[in-house]
Amino acid sequence: MADIKFEIEKELGKISESSKGWTKELNLISWNGKEAKYDLRDWAPEHEKMGKGITLSIDELKQLKEILNILDI
Amino acid sequence: MADIKFEIEKELGKISESSKGWTKELNLISWNGKEAKYDLRDWAPEHEKMGKGITLSIDELKQLKEILNILDI
Repeated sequence: MADIKFEIEKELGKISESSKGWTKELNLISWNGKEAKYDLRDWAPEHEKMGKGITLSIDELKQLKEILNILDI
Repeated sequence: MADIKFEIEKELGKISESSKGWTKELNLISWNGKEAKYDLRDWAPEHEKMGKGITLSIDELKQLKEILNILDI
């Protein structure tokens, strides 16, 4: 796999933590030097390895927030 | 790739739509007949193909909601 450069510009919050110490996090991340995107992803301790995840634009994040606030959770 | 069976039990909301008609959606999905999980994922029109995504437990979804409501977005 090609080398991916990333920089976590802002840690926005931890969503959960597994028994092995991996955490699901929402961060603002710049991939390969591009403009930072919101990113929901699993991480090993100290961000040493990354798991699968998705990136979201600010508009997508706002829409997700609206949906969650409508849901009965 | 092994065949994956899924059933969308509840469509909770559309987060965005691309120019090609793919949509990013939050759904409640049962994978391979197991207990349904919350699922944030890209889909082709009519859910004919699925893109990458992540699954979330109800606790993770609640935590995500809290984080989004704290953020200034």
